[in-house]
Amino acid sequence: MSRDVRIELQPIGVIHTDVPDDEVARRRRDMVSTIEVWPEFRDGLLGIDGYSHLFVLFALHRADAPTRLTAHPRGDTSRPPQGVFAARGRNHPNGLGLAVVELLGVDGGRLTVRKLDAFDGTPLIDLKPYDSYDVVAAPRVPDWWRSRTLTPRDDLR
Amino acid sequence: MSRDVRIELQPIGVIHTDVPDDEVARRRRDMVSTIEVWPEFRDGLLGIDGYSHLFVLFALHRADAPTRLTAHPRGDTSRPPQGVFAARGRNHPNGLGLAVVELLGVDGGRLTVRKLDAFDGTPLIDLKPYDSYDVVAAPRVPDWWRSRTLTPRDDLR
Repeated sequence: MSRDVRIELQPIGVIHTDVPDDEVARRRRDMVSTIEVWPEFRDGLLGIDGYSHLFVLFALHRADAPTRLTAHPRGDTSRPPQGVFAARGRNHPNGLGLAVVELLGVDGGRLTVRKLDAFDGTPLIDLKPYDSYDVVAAPRVPDWWRSRTLTPRDDLR
Repeated sequence: MSRDVRIELQPIGVIHTDVPDDEVARRRRDMVSTIEVWPEFRDGLLGIDGYSHLFVLFALHRADAPTRLTAHPRGDTSRPPQGVFAARGRNHPNGLGLAVVELLGVDGGRLTVRKLDAFDGTPLIDLKPYDSYDVVAAPRVPDWWRSRTLTPRDDLR
């Protein structure tokens, strides 16, 4: 495979939410969003209401191109620096977001979902159903990840 | 947002496996692969060994462009047709594969993983750590999905 290959994606819809950008991280656990799938892609939704949860892939269209491949998680210098692939930040070389969301309802080409931590206006790239193969009963995570959940009001990922 | 926007991705590595293409679907539950991250992206792996499981995003570089947005799952006409977004096939408008894998080991820029159902030579797009927010204890799936696991030798997704 040539390293020079480029892969081009086209949005299939757009994500809407009333949550302001700067509150998305804090409210990500319970925020509700609407996913609008454009008409030409709506046939692809047939049967999606049979699932309780979905993966949503979206374009981090407002993220800056990363200049470094390591960073302190969420900028907190009390935590050890991590590689970008060892955290779920917006600074990956390919700017794709991935969220596991709860599907609350489907109305034509509009899906109502919970826990989608994407800004209003985010381009939708793909939807995939979440099934039992995606469940890891007790995933191991680093110490810094676990410890950060002990901090009051620190509900950032 | 303009519908005409295009998002361009560049591979960050390549996936290697000894499993022939036509055996990947059948062996996906336990097959072992090596992910080679190219040198210029390896700093991004710092700390990734703290996780037991990862999401792997890859390019479905050999999938044909889809001509329809509905299909019988795995071509089985005894199952009702599903929209492409309601199944995990290779026929989505944007050809990205997503797998939850078990991380078995890290050696420099090479990661050994289990359960990555990608063909040998597949371009790697992104790695993201799997954490407790990604666990859905009992996801609901459609009847056709559950029933297909009762078929002997049908271990396709």
